[in-house]
Amino acid sequence: MALVNEHYLKLPGNYLFSDIAKKINTFKVTHPGKRLIRLGIGDVTRPLPQACITAMHKAVDEMSKAETFHGYGPEQGYDFLIEAILKNDFASRGISLSPTEIFINDGAKSDTGNIGEVLRWDNSMGVTDPIYPVYIDSNVMCGRSGELGEDGKWSNVTYLPCTAENHFIPQIPDRRIDIIYLCYPNNPTGTTLTKAELKKWVDYALANDTLIFFDAAYEAYIREDDVPHSIYEIKGAKRCAIEFRSFSKTAGFTGVRCGYTVVPKELTAATLDGERVSVNKLWNRRQCTKFNGTSYITQRGAEAIYTAEGKAQVKATIDYYMENARIMREGLQSAGFKVYGGVNAPYIWLKTPDNTGSWRFFEQLLYEVNVVGTPGVGFGPSGEGYLRLTAFGEREDCIEAMRRIRMWI
Amino acid sequence: MALVNEHYLKLPGNYLFSDIAKKINTFKVTHPGKRLIRLGIGDVTRPLPQACITAMHKAVDEMSKAETFHGYGPEQGYDFLIEAILKNDFASRGISLSPTEIFINDGAKSDTGNIGEVLRWDNSMGVTDPIYPVYIDSNVMCGRSGELGEDGKWSNVTYLPCTAENHFIPQIPDRRIDIIYLCYPNNPTGTTLTKAELKKWVDYALANDTLIFFDAAYEAYIREDDVPHSIYEIKGAKRCAIEFRSFSKTAGFTGVRCGYTVVPKELTAATLDGERVSVNKLWNRRQCTKFNGTSYITQRGAEAIYTAEGKAQVKATIDYYMENARIMREGLQSAGFKVYGGVNAPYIWLKTPDNTGSWRFFEQLLYEVNVVGTPGVGFGPSGEGYLRLTAFGEREDCIEAMRRIRMWI
Repeated sequence: MALVNEHYLKLPGNYLFSDIAKKINTFKVTHPGKRLIRLGIGDVTRPLPQACITAMHKAVDEMSKAETFHGYGPEQGYDFLIEAILKNDFASRGISLSPTEIFINDGAKSDTGNIGEVLRWDNSMGVTDPIYPVYIDSNVMCGRSGELGEDGKWSNVTYLPCTAENHFIPQIPDRRIDIIYLCYPNNPTGTTLTKAELKKWVDYALANDTLIFFDAAYEAYIREDDVPHSIYEIKGAKRCAIEFRSFSKTAGFTGVRCGYTVVPKELTAATLDGERVSVNKLWNRRQCTKFNGTSYITQRGAEAIYTAEGKAQVKATIDYYMENARIMREGLQSAGFKVYGGVNAPYIWLKTPDNTGSWRFFEQLLYEVNVVGTPGVGFGPSGEGYLRLTAFGEREDCIEAMRRIRMWI
Repeated sequence: MALVNEHYLKLPGNYLFSDIAKKINTFKVTHPGKRLIRLGIGDVTRPLPQACITAMHKAVDEMSKAETFHGYGPEQGYDFLIEAILKNDFASRGISLSPTEIFINDGAKSDTGNIGEVLRWDNSMGVTDPIYPVYIDSNVMCGRSGELGEDGKWSNVTYLPCTAENHFIPQIPDRRIDIIYLCYPNNPTGTTLTKAELKKWVDYALANDTLIFFDAAYEAYIREDDVPHSIYEIKGAKRCAIEFRSFSKTAGFTGVRCGYTVVPKELTAATLDGERVSVNKLWNRRQCTKFNGTSYITQRGAEAIYTAEGKAQVKATIDYYMENARIMREGLQSAGFKVYGGVNAPYIWLKTPDNTGSWRFFEQLLYEVNVVGTPGVGFGPSGEGYLRLTAFGEREDCIEAMRRIRMWI
């Protein structure tokens, strides 16, 4: 009799964005004439950079002739893309990595979801709170998170609150945790850590033999000098951290699917007997067994991001979103709200007025000004009393949303 | 201290095709003037159908304008592709499935590798032998396969030998097994099961509450009437089987990455308490958490396979490969070899003469006629004494390889 993995049954049935979609549908049915402005889900709206379009057309044409056809590629990705990454994302910042430390994937969600497979199911884990739900859910699925308590917290997860009270700087734990997820610039709060703050985490990890999963999907939005683009800017990080990168928010690849994961050769984890094992080797084996590489066409598109033309086009798109972020941040501040993020990230984290609950404030915005955000509590218990807005919308929508909110207040 | 998943350490260090690549490299270095004919690895060589090329160009252009840009798609795939699949692959054979029973993916390797996640790690499992290595390796990684014995077999895996002696028809087990992997048309043997033979497996599964993972990646190569294209042609299969399909070998998508998995709503597995749980729901949750959908451009390319033009082009490519298979099969037979497969599959399974070992025969072919095959034992213990040749090469290479082998004999 085939038995199910019962850890899956512990997951709450509904997913944050499905719940929101249902509430939006209800609103639409009951308010057919109203125009909604959606500043909720973190999907991009600008088209792909022209350099990527040109490169993908060329790659599609290559697939049409036997002489230039590409079949199975390397599971780890093509060298042309890996070389472009090493040169532009790392060497330019003084970080030296080798090609076999880079794994091209079909997006950061897959790898952040799958990475836990190479580790024992009963390692302890910690997350900053609020956080991207995949980190916890993927650990629930293998039993690592434990049981869900009435307070909305999982029993084997250490939550590191990030709120206005601590300036969104998570406190270093006072005990050993085996695996820590850090996402900076942060989704959902849009806040960052300075190099000095991130160094404290690397030092903690080295002292405690902790493995850091560092999600840098929003790295391209960093504007301030003192914010690290890669955790490997911190000395010693190659011995304790895996870094996840994505082209989704950098170059609009949410529908094209490409990102990469850095697993340094120096990084090891232990067996029960204390033997040290290369995590790079384990992850390579995982990818060779359960993944067959990313589309050749997609990888040629991603390579084009690193051309002079591609870089200029990516910069223009990010400037557009960051101008949206500025308009929203300043608009909300002038309306009297407390807002965070939006300086080095496309996310605005809004404190609800008078400690209104996240879901209640979400509904007020939906019904009273017809603007859709994402309830902060959907990202974890410490998100209660906040709402996330994203800067990925159309310029006019951002301006109109601010106008409506100012009028409403 | 982060601890590794020690099951990974049980996997033999090298992968079949890496070992072969090394031997080929050694040969090349020591025999620089010789022209090798590679009939080993199962990658296609014909370009993509023109219909797919046209569709992908159009999709790339859509991504270049904000009005037609596509960001995140559904994790389960776009309706346009799912509808084309339902109509052409199933309704046309009298099989009724609903859209939510289809999950578009980035290739069958990912899903055949990941599907085991939704089941308890200690279910018992069975595989036909020889077999595609991913089935076993992915189960080793979660501990389900047990320990590797000196005989090359894993302790918790039931091997169902398929050899010339039993006409490559696996014997129905005399005891209950929780999960059975079946791949038909078979990789590596190229053999098939008739509808009557496959029905015995469905009946066994229903009687024993067994879950069948049915890999139909080579379905498009079936030529004979009595060979089922889908396991759902057998009554009751929706209650016991998941089917994996791939566009890799159908339409040359090995470098484009697209396939799909069918998880019928009727299919359930049990909790320890005996409660029945929908496997479709679990798999949907897995995909929504750890996968972000397949590239929009890729899915538009796959949709074009189902147009009248696309179907004609796919047929022409498959006819080309199957003519290669005929040439190789008949060439080898006339040279006195016993060969199997190649009638409903792009694989030829060659019995080595005089019970020569697989690896020894592989080296004889490599060094004496400069033809590369794949040693049968690389696919499992029952593959010893066989060699796999694939029909995916160039026509002239197949003809030349047969000429060399005839001369050699």
